[in-house]
Amino acid sequence: MSTNVKVGIIGATGYVGAELVRALSRHRGFQITSLVSQSYAGKAFADIYPALKGITDMICSPLDIDAVSSSCDVVVTALPHGVSSEVVPVLLGKGVRVLDHSGDFRYKDRSIYETAYKLKHPAPHLLAEAVYGLPEFYREQIKEARLVANPGCYPTCSLLALTPLFRRNLIDPDSLIISAASGISGAGRKSDIAYQYCEAAESFRAYSVTGHRHTSEIEEILTLQTGVKTAITFTPHLAPMKRGMLATIYADVSSGCDLKTLRNAYAEDYDNEFFVRLLPEGMSPDTANVAFSNFADIAVFFEERTGRATLLSSIDNLGKGASLQAVQALNIMFGFNETEGLI
Amino acid sequence: MSTNVKVGIIGATGYVGAELVRALSRHRGFQITSLVSQSYAGKAFADIYPALKGITDMICSPLDIDAVSSSCDVVVTALPHGVSSEVVPVLLGKGVRVLDHSGDFRYKDRSIYETAYKLKHPAPHLLAEAVYGLPEFYREQIKEARLVANPGCYPTCSLLALTPLFRRNLIDPDSLIISAASGISGAGRKSDIAYQYCEAAESFRAYSVTGHRHTSEIEEILTLQTGVKTAITFTPHLAPMKRGMLATIYADVSSGCDLKTLRNAYAEDYDNEFFVRLLPEGMSPDTANVAFSNFADIAVFFEERTGRATLLSSIDNLGKGASLQAVQALNIMFGFNETEGLI
Amino acid sequence: MSTNVKVGIIGATGYVGAELVRALSRHRGFQITSLVSQSYAGKAFADIYPALKGITDMICSPLDIDAVSSSCDVVVTALPHGVSSEVVPVLLGKGVRVLDHSGDFRYKDRSIYETAYKLKHPAPHLLAEAVYGLPEFYREQIKEARLVANPGCYPTCSLLALTPLFRRNLIDPDSLIISAASGISGAGRKSDIAYQYCEAAESFRAYSVTGHRHTSEIEEILTLQTGVKTAITFTPHLAPMKRGMLATIYADVSSGCDLKTLRNAYAEDYDNEFFVRLLPEGMSPDTANVAFSNFADIAVFFEERTGRATLLSSIDNLGKGASLQAVQALNIMFGFNETEGLI
Amino acid sequence: MSTNVKVGIIGATGYVGAELVRALSRHRGFQITSLVSQSYAGKAFADIYPALKGITDMICSPLDIDAVSSSCDVVVTALPHGVSSEVVPVLLGKGVRVLDHSGDFRYKDRSIYETAYKLKHPAPHLLAEAVYGLPEFYREQIKEARLVANPGCYPTCSLLALTPLFRRNLIDPDSLIISAASGISGAGRKSDIAYQYCEAAESFRAYSVTGHRHTSEIEEILTLQTGVKTAITFTPHLAPMKRGMLATIYADVSSGCDLKTLRNAYAEDYDNEFFVRLLPEGMSPDTANVAFSNFADIAVFFEERTGRATLLSSIDNLGKGASLQAVQALNIMFGFNETEGLI
Repeated sequence: MSTNVKVGIIGATGYVGAELVRALSRHRGFQITSLVSQSYAGKAFADIYPALKGITDMICSPLDIDAVSSSCDVVVTALPHGVSSEVVPVLLGKGVRVLDHSGDFRYKDRSIYETAYKLKHPAPHLLAEAVYGLPEFYREQIKEARLVANPGCYPTCSLLALTPLFRRNLIDPDSLIISAASGISGAGRKSDIAYQYCEAAESFRAYSVTGHRHTSEIEEILTLQTGVKTAITFTPHLAPMKRGMLATIYADVSSGCDLKTLRNAYAEDYDNEFFVRLLPEGMSPDTANVAFSNFADIAVFFEERTGRATLLSSIDNLGKGASLQAVQALNIMFGFNETEGLI
Repeated sequence: MSTNVKVGIIGATGYVGAELVRALSRHRGFQITSLVSQSYAGKAFADIYPALKGITDMICSPLDIDAVSSSCDVVVTALPHGVSSEVVPVLLGKGVRVLDHSGDFRYKDRSIYETAYKLKHPAPHLLAEAVYGLPEFYREQIKEARLVANPGCYPTCSLLALTPLFRRNLIDPDSLIISAASGISGAGRKSDIAYQYCEAAESFRAYSVTGHRHTSEIEEILTLQTGVKTAITFTPHLAPMKRGMLATIYADVSSGCDLKTLRNAYAEDYDNEFFVRLLPEGMSPDTANVAFSNFADIAVFFEERTGRATLLSSIDNLGKGASLQAVQALNIMFGFNETEGLI
Repeated sequence: MSTNVKVGIIGATGYVGAELVRALSRHRGFQITSLVSQSYAGKAFADIYPALKGITDMICSPLDIDAVSSSCDVVVTALPHGVSSEVVPVLLGKGVRVLDHSGDFRYKDRSIYETAYKLKHPAPHLLAEAVYGLPEFYREQIKEARLVANPGCYPTCSLLALTPLFRRNLIDPDSLIISAASGISGAGRKSDIAYQYCEAAESFRAYSVTGHRHTSEIEEILTLQTGVKTAITFTPHLAPMKRGMLATIYADVSSGCDLKTLRNAYAEDYDNEFFVRLLPEGMSPDTANVAFSNFADIAVFFEERTGRATLLSSIDNLGKGASLQAVQALNIMFGFNETEGLI
Repeated sequence: MSTNVKVGIIGATGYVGAELVRALSRHRGFQITSLVSQSYAGKAFADIYPALKGITDMICSPLDIDAVSSSCDVVVTALPHGVSSEVVPVLLGKGVRVLDHSGDFRYKDRSIYETAYKLKHPAPHLLAEAVYGLPEFYREQIKEARLVANPGCYPTCSLLALTPLFRRNLIDPDSLIISAASGISGAGRKSDIAYQYCEAAESFRAYSVTGHRHTSEIEEILTLQTGVKTAITFTPHLAPMKRGMLATIYADVSSGCDLKTLRNAYAEDYDNEFFVRLLPEGMSPDTANVAFSNFADIAVFFEERTGRATLLSSIDNLGKGASLQAVQALNIMFGFNETEGLI
C-alpha cells in the first residue's frame, strides 16, 4: 500500500460523488487529485457538503479533460447517461482508466441500450471491452479493465439474489418478478417537488411501473450468464428514507428443488465474498443493517404450496448500489485489499 | 339524522380505538357511551391520547358486559383474536349488534381460521352469520347484520384491487403475488424494540415472509366470490412511516384481455363507490394521498411482453384498513349516509 | 346554518390553500366558489392534490378580480407579501370581505413592516382598519372586520403563550427569548434543495438566526396590548417533520410571582377558549397532539433558582398557525359556531 | 502504531456500545478483547446488531471482572449511573485504566452529583482523580488518566460553545439559557411507548423541562474553569430523527464586546482542534453535517439591539456526544493520532 493512486471524479457534486469523496478520503491507497463539477466550478467541495469540512479542502474545477487525465491514474465519471458516453472515450484515449457510473457502458447489446435509454449510443465500439463492475461475478475482468461500468443500484441488488439461482437453472426464467423499494437519495440531489420532504415523508409509492430502464440491465446480465432469455416484471418504489434498498423477488422454483438447494447455491457463490451476507434461515434483511456500508444482505424463502421462492436482497443504494461498489472495483483494479476504505 | 345511535368500544385504547373515537366524535349520528379498556380503566381517554383533549372527556371503564350492552345499540370490539370470539357471543346474546375488528369472524371455513390462527374457534356457530365488512362487496348483508367482521388491512387493500378481476376470470388464480408495505401503526400501540423509532426509521424490511395470516383471509374471500380456489404468495413489509399501506399485486392476465378490459372491470364495480378511486391511466397511488381518509386508490398496469398485470392499491391502514371502514359499515348498519363522519 | 357563504381562495395551490380547501369542504356553512391559481389555471385542483379527489372537482382559474368578487362573499388571499397588498385593496373596493394570509396587513406601524419586509407598503391606509386575526384576543373586532390579517405561525404560537403574562406585567419585557421549531411545511410547497427529503430528514437546524420577520410581528402585537416596548430574541428552527410547531419561550418573572400566578393568568384568558388547552401542571406539549387540528397546547414551568419561566406552546403550523385559524376567523366573521369545520 | 491495545466494553449492547464496536473495529491500534453484556451473555454481538455481521464475530460474555481486567489494557464502561460507580473502583483496583460513560465520575463536588442523581455516591474518593474526558479542554490530563469520565452529550455540545466565552468573561454567567434538541437514540435502546416510531415520528417535544441532570454538569464544568458560579436554564427536546444534537444557547454579552471578539475567542481555542469547526460568519450548523462523526460545528450570532449572543453548537449525540468522543480520549490515553479510527 505504498502506492498512491491518483483519482479524479467528474460529476463530483451529486450524492454519488460525495459518497465517493468520503470513502476515498479515508482510503490509504487513493489520493483524489481532481473534483470536476460544471455547476460548482471554483467552489470548495466542503461548501457544498459542509459535512466534509476538515476532510477535504479541494476546490471543484470545470471540465478540462487534458488537465484531469494528466493528473489522474483513474477517473470516476458520475455523469448522466448520454453524457458519459461522450466523455469516456476521450478519457480512455488519454490513457487513463475509467470507472463510469452511468448506464452507457453496462450493456453488451447496443440495441437493448438504445431502446431502454431512447438514444443512439455514441461509442458502441467500447461496449465489448467495458466490464460490468459487479466484483462478485466479474472480479477477474475488473482487474485488468480499462473501462468499468458500475452497475445500477436495482440491478446490483437484484442480480446478487437472482444470479446464483438463475445460473444453476433453479428458477423459471419466465416467472421472475421484482418488487423493490429505494430510499430517496436514489433520485439524486436535485430540487423537484416530488422529492420535497413534505411530499416524500409519510409516503410510499411505486414509480416507472412497467418501464424502468434497469429491467433490461437485469435481464441482459442474467442472460449473459447462461444464454437463457428472461422477461422480468420489475416495479420500483420510493420509501420514505434517505438511503437503503430492498428487492423482494418472486420466482417459480424448478421441480425437485427445495430450500436447501437454494441456500446451497448462495453458499457456493458467496461463502468467500466478504460483502455478501447470506442471512441465517428465517431471518429477513433490513435496509438499516446495510446503510452506509458496501454489504448486501440476502435471504431466501420457499413455499411449497405455491412452488414459489421469495428472495430478499438489501443494499445501501449509495453504498453497494453505487459509490462503495465503485471503491470495491477500484480496489480490484489497483491491487488493493478489497475491503480497504470500506470497513 | 335525528337519531342518536349509542356505540361502545371495547379495547378502546389501541390505535384502532383512538381513530374510532376521533371519527365518531365528529359524526352527527353516533354517540359514544362506553369506552372499555382493562389496562386503563378509570383513566380519562384524553390522558392516554392528549390530542383528543377537548374532543372527548370520557373515562375508560373496565369490561362489564351488562353495563356495556345496556348502554349501547352497537358495540365495536377491538380485541385480540381469540379474545373477541369469547366476548362477541355474549354481547350478541344481550341483543346488541357487534362490529368486530379481529380475525375471529372473518372466515366462513373454520378450519382455515384454525390453521391460520393456530387456535380452536370458540364460537364457530357464528361464522355463517357473520358478515365480512367490506361495504363495496357486502353492502346489502351489512345493512341487516347482527355481527360484522371488519376486514384486515392487507385484505381490504388487496381485495379491492383483486376482486373485480378475479370475479370476472380476467386473471389466473394460480399466479397471484402480493408485495405490500404498511406504515408502522399497523403493529399496534405497544412497546417493542423492533418498532422503536431508532430501529424503524430509515428501515425497510419484510416480515412474516411466507406465513402471514392475512394470506388465507384474502384467499377465502376471493374464493367465496366465484368458487375458484387460489393460493397466493403474500409478502408484507414495514415502511418507515406512521400510516399508509400499498399493495403491489402481480397477476397473469387471461388471454385476449388488455388494459382496457381490466380498467372496465374496475369502472363497473367502483364508478358508484365514493371511497374507491380508480386513478387515471398511468398514474400510481401514493399512500400520502389516502392518509387519514377512508379512500382506496387503485391503478392497474399491463405489460404485454410478460402478459402480467401490476395492480396497485393504497389505503390508510388505520382508515379504510381499520377504523374508518368500520365507521362506513356502521353508517350502513344504521342507515346513515355512507360518508357521514368520513369526509 | 341555512346560509351558504360563498368563499374564494386566491393563491389556492400552496399548502395553506390546500388545507383551507380540505377544511372548508367539510364545513356546512361555506361553499367554495373560486380557486385562483396563476400557475395552475385550468387544472383540476384534485390533480395537484390527488388526496382531494372526490372531495372537490373544482378547476383552478386565473386571477380575475371581477369574477372572484362577484362570485364570493369573502375572499381568502394566500399570496406572497407585497403581492397581497396590491390585490387586497381592489377586492375590498369591490365590496367583498377579505382574510389575508400574508404579513402585509398584520402591522399597525407601517415603518416596522417596511423595515422587516424591506419594501414600501402599497396600501398603508388599510393598516388601521385591518384586524389581527387571532380570535382569542381580537374576537370582537374580527366579527365586523372587512379585512382580517391572519397571524403568522410563529407569532400565533408565541403570542398565545406570552400575551396572558405580558399584559399582566408578570414577565420582564426585556428578557424575552423564543426558541421555536417548525415542521417543514412551513417553508411552503416549492422545490428547493434545502427542503428535499435527503437534505431535511435526520436534520435539525436553525435559520434566520437573528433577523426573522416574525420577531417584529410578535413585538408589535405585544406592545399593542399594554403600550410597553419589548425587544425579543427569536430563533426559528426546522425540525424533520411535515407539520407542527413548538415555541420554547424564556422570560424573567416579575418578583413575587410564582407558578400559580402564571397558571392563573392562562386560566383566566383561556378557560373559555375551546382551541387553547392549558396542560396539567408538569405536562409538556407535543406537536403530535395538535397535528391536523386548530388546537394550541400550552404549558408553563417556573424555576425559582433562576427566576425564569419556561413557556411551551405548540400548534400545527398549517392548523392554528395558518389555514384552520383562518377558518376559525371566518366562522366568527359570518356568525357560525367557532368550531364548525374544525373538529 | 505497532501496538495492539486491548480494550473491553462493559455494557456493550446499548447504542453507545454498538457505536464503540463499530469505531474500534476499524481502528488500527485497538483490539476489542471483551464484550460484556448481562442480558445478552452467550449471544453473538452481530446477532444483536446484524449490521456488524462480518465486522465482528465476538460473543457477549457475562460480567466477570477478573476475566475482563486480565484480558484488557483499558475498559470502557457503558453502564447506568450508580452501577458504574460500583464496578469502576474494582476495575481500577485490578490495574486497568477505565473510560466511563455514566455521570458517576463527571463531578468534582460530590454533593452536586448526589443532588442531581438522587443517590449517595459509592466511590467519592475517585472524584478528585477522575478526568473529565473533553479533549479540547482536558487533553493533558487525559493522557495520563487512570479514570476518564466521558462527558454527557448535552454538556459536550453546550460546553464547546460556552467555555471559550465564559472563561474570557465575555458573557454574563447569570444569563445563560440552553434550548437543545436531541435525536431519539439519546434515549437509548429500550422498548418504551414514548419512543415508538408512531409516537416519536412527526413529534417535537420538550422533556425534563426544568430538572435535567446535565444542567448541573454544565454548570460545574464552567465554574471549574474560572471559579465563577452560574445557574443555567436548560431545556432538552426530542426531535424526530435517529441521531444528532443541536444546542441553541442564549447569553447576554459583556459590554463592549462584539461579534469579532466572540469569534476570536473560538478561533483561539479551536483553530488547532481538528474536531471543532467554527463555521463561517452567518452560517448555521445542521445536525446532518455532523451525523456519524466526531465533529462539533459551532456558530455565533450577536444582536446589538438586545445585547444578546446566540450560540449554536451541533454534534452527533452518539458521536462527539458519546462513543466517538470516547475513542478520541482513548487515542489520547494511548498515544495514537487523535483522529485514528474517527475519519
